[in-house]
Amino acid sequence: MTTRKIILAEDEMPRQWYNILADIKMNPPLGPDGNPVTPEALAPVFPMNLIEQEVSTERWIDIPEEVLDILRIWRPSPLVRALSLEKALDTPAKIYFKNESVSPPGSHKPNTAVPQAYYNREFGIKKITTETGAGQWGSALSFACSLFGIECKVFMVRVSFDQKPYRKSMMEVWGGKCVASPSSETKAGQEALEKDPDTPGSLGIAISEAIEEAVSDETGNTRYSLGSVLNHVMLHQTIIGLEAKKQLEKTGDYPDVIIGCAGGGSNFAGLAFPFVLDKINGKEIDIYPVEPAGCPTLTKAPFVYDHGDTARYTPLLPMYSLGHTFVPPPFHAGGLRYHGMAPTVSQLVSEGLIEPKAITQLDAYEAGVLLARSEGLIPAPETTHALACVVDEARKAKEEGKEKVILFNWSGHGLLDLMAYDKYFSNELKNISLPEAEIAESEKVFENFPKPELLKSR
Amino acid sequence: MTTRKIILAEDEMPRQWYNILADIKMNPPLGPDGNPVTPEALAPVFPMNLIEQEVSTERWIDIPEEVLDILRIWRPSPLVRALSLEKALDTPAKIYFKNESVSPPGSHKPNTAVPQAYYNREFGIKKITTETGAGQWGSALSFACSLFGIECKVFMVRVSFDQKPYRKSMMEVWGGKCVASPSSETKAGQEALEKDPDTPGSLGIAISEAIEEAVSDETGNTRYSLGSVLNHVMLHQTIIGLEAKKQLEKTGDYPDVIIGCAGGGSNFAGLAFPFVLDKINGKEIDIYPVEPAGCPTLTKAPFVYDHGDTARYTPLLPMYSLGHTFVPPPFHAGGLRYHGMAPTVSQLVSEGLIEPKAITQLDAYEAGVLLARSEGLIPAPETTHALACVVDEARKAKEEGKEKVILFNWSGHGLLDLMAYDKYFSNELKNISLPEAEIAESEKVFENFPKPELLKSR
Repeated sequence: MTTRKIILAEDEMPRQWYNILADIKMNPPLGPDGNPVTPEALAPVFPMNLIEQEVSTERWIDIPEEVLDILRIWRPSPLVRALSLEKALDTPAKIYFKNESVSPPGSHKPNTAVPQAYYNREFGIKKITTETGAGQWGSALSFACSLFGIECKVFMVRVSFDQKPYRKSMMEVWGGKCVASPSSETKAGQEALEKDPDTPGSLGIAISEAIEEAVSDETGNTRYSLGSVLNHVMLHQTIIGLEAKKQLEKTGDYPDVIIGCAGGGSNFAGLAFPFVLDKINGKEIDIYPVEPAGCPTLTKAPFVYDHGDTARYTPLLPMYSLGHTFVPPPFHAGGLRYHGMAPTVSQLVSEGLIEPKAITQLDAYEAGVLLARSEGLIPAPETTHALACVVDEARKAKEEGKEKVILFNWSGHGLLDLMAYDKYFSNELKNISLPEAEIAESEKVFENFPKPELLKSR
Repeated sequence: MTTRKIILAEDEMPRQWYNILADIKMNPPLGPDGNPVTPEALAPVFPMNLIEQEVSTERWIDIPEEVLDILRIWRPSPLVRALSLEKALDTPAKIYFKNESVSPPGSHKPNTAVPQAYYNREFGIKKITTETGAGQWGSALSFACSLFGIECKVFMVRVSFDQKPYRKSMMEVWGGKCVASPSSETKAGQEALEKDPDTPGSLGIAISEAIEEAVSDETGNTRYSLGSVLNHVMLHQTIIGLEAKKQLEKTGDYPDVIIGCAGGGSNFAGLAFPFVLDKINGKEIDIYPVEPAGCPTLTKAPFVYDHGDTARYTPLLPMYSLGHTFVPPPFHAGGLRYHGMAPTVSQLVSEGLIEPKAITQLDAYEAGVLLARSEGLIPAPETTHALACVVDEARKAKEEGKEKVILFNWSGHGLLDLMAYDKYFSNELKNISLPEAEIAESEKVFENFPKPELLKSR
């Protein structure tokens, strides 16, 4: 029997993260004065040890022992050969996925929540604030904070707060506090509610609320934490791709195609970046970040400077953006409802090293059900977007008669998203695509900002 | 760093189940005429290949290759050293658990659902009916049936159906059909609804409904499947304990105490039976099945002959029973709400080879939260009962200054039970214990049945 799960022992876990900033050129984030932001300017928001990591250009960064010890609760994660899916699709392609749903909160998010909680505690921080979309990030940070004895406050995008009540319960089991965003607890939240009392909320607004609560703590013991987008988050997630490389070596296979869903970018980056390094060094790989057609940042928006949040508390970041005031329609993949994209992922797209794809909601769920009924696992709505792309590639391989090796990231399980499957089965879901005019309108917010340079890394 | 997870490779998986019937004496199940039931009498209910397994006294039974292949989706399951819990309790005890929550449906139940679906398909069966309490069994059977192309119909105890809507969704993702029990679709259901239209339902009633639907299919292509209690179910679950033995050998430890929660008995038996064999052969081990104080079968009821279901469709089984018409109070550990207990587990209790414990609901949740905030994993309400017993034992080890080795079964995760945690945090849960008078009343139903002999296996 072909092995289904390629397993690493705990002592085979990577002991360093891969930092892509060593290998690509980047436009710097800009402050309100139009100049590159200094580390000091970020000090009220993040602890200095994480800011240093954010700007570091060292290629390999040591993972602290205490972080490794906690990651071992669920890592190394299995690399799974999707034999039953291959059979269901009758494809000559070999399909592998990295199963990141095995963490206690159920996604890849704790890979960065744990080190972020660690570095905050090392810096003497007592409380961390954050935002969450689908709830994966908020529960991951609550989990991590509970293990390091740090207080955790989560602003959860209202539409997900209402759709996924179990996520809030989960955060509370780990001692976290979760409120719906926009809330009346912050100025940013109050303004959003004044504009539209019935707003579904957005990651942009929730980020503003969390930053505001962190920087307004006069004791100086609170910091903010972001679950995606930033360089140090991508860095922490590279443990996924580094493990996958070691695991694939055991099989003798090397991927022709790499696929990950992309909202803020961290799940995609975590798997892909260590392989992007190979591509920069000459390997031929197709690398696809997959986004929802309802929030088509990489496939429909321009590469610009824009704020990461609605209230413009963040620096200007070089990224593909639908505009920082953009409120995505309330489709179910809450983790993919972000107006922007990680600057590192954006940079790779801008220079053609990776090629974005967009997937509609119904295609995504169809692929999700196919997977559940073959491999047995129920994927998160975010993961189903990657899956739909995998199914496309596997069918293409069949048409071409090619034994391609496809590797994708199983970002999380869908056990707290089952209501979305209910709606899918009862035909309540539809495909959401964005009118061009609406996109054009929402992009006016960055018209007068500086423009990033088109840089080439190779 | 001490290893947290002791992992077996797929090719180290046990290839045979352990059948405890080879090593203990048992009273036979009795038919309506008071004589031992024949295999033929069970043929309308179960496929003959499973009936043969039910009555087999072979010590080792081969696991079919196709079953092994599917079990490998999640097996071998990790044996986890609960280092963070040990630290939180400051105990000299070494605590290990077998993590059965890693299966796609989230519990140990697919260990028997997969072989049962396999044997039914081999026998030409097209549809399987069953009951489910907490929903773990119903989802496990839906999962297994989807992989073997068999139709699946689940009668879910109403109180759980209402408390856990996600379980129904999960079954539907795998193509299963789930209705609340009592339903109006069967005579047994109609009778129960006539007696009490607001009944929370019980496993006993749901079993009656599922058996009735199976035997009344005139095509002969439908059979019934039970997720616990029966000998072949215990058999299939022994893969847990057999794996655990191999894993413990790698650490050099051997358990002093073995703990598992017990509703119908299969989760407890799966871990414990391979060690009971050692105990029969002279090893000193304390083995504790743990039940809820709200349904105290082993600790408060007598060892009798009684029916496994309310409508008396099953043979008379030799077991501890609160009476086949007993409807347990609606506490949250739905998987432990059964009036009886597996005859094999009952036999071991009756001769003192294992020692039952009862745990109250609030102690169980307190232990569950302690676990979630140390080890990170959120346990199912059923599992928290085992945990509370583990915590007691670990504290006792501390008082006695003994480095005991405690092994327990993590039967499932609590991700679809988070509403119960909500209620716990908001002080809506209370301890439920049963008035002696109520127990005495419910036990009248078996007054006139034959009595089992007290047999000694060693």
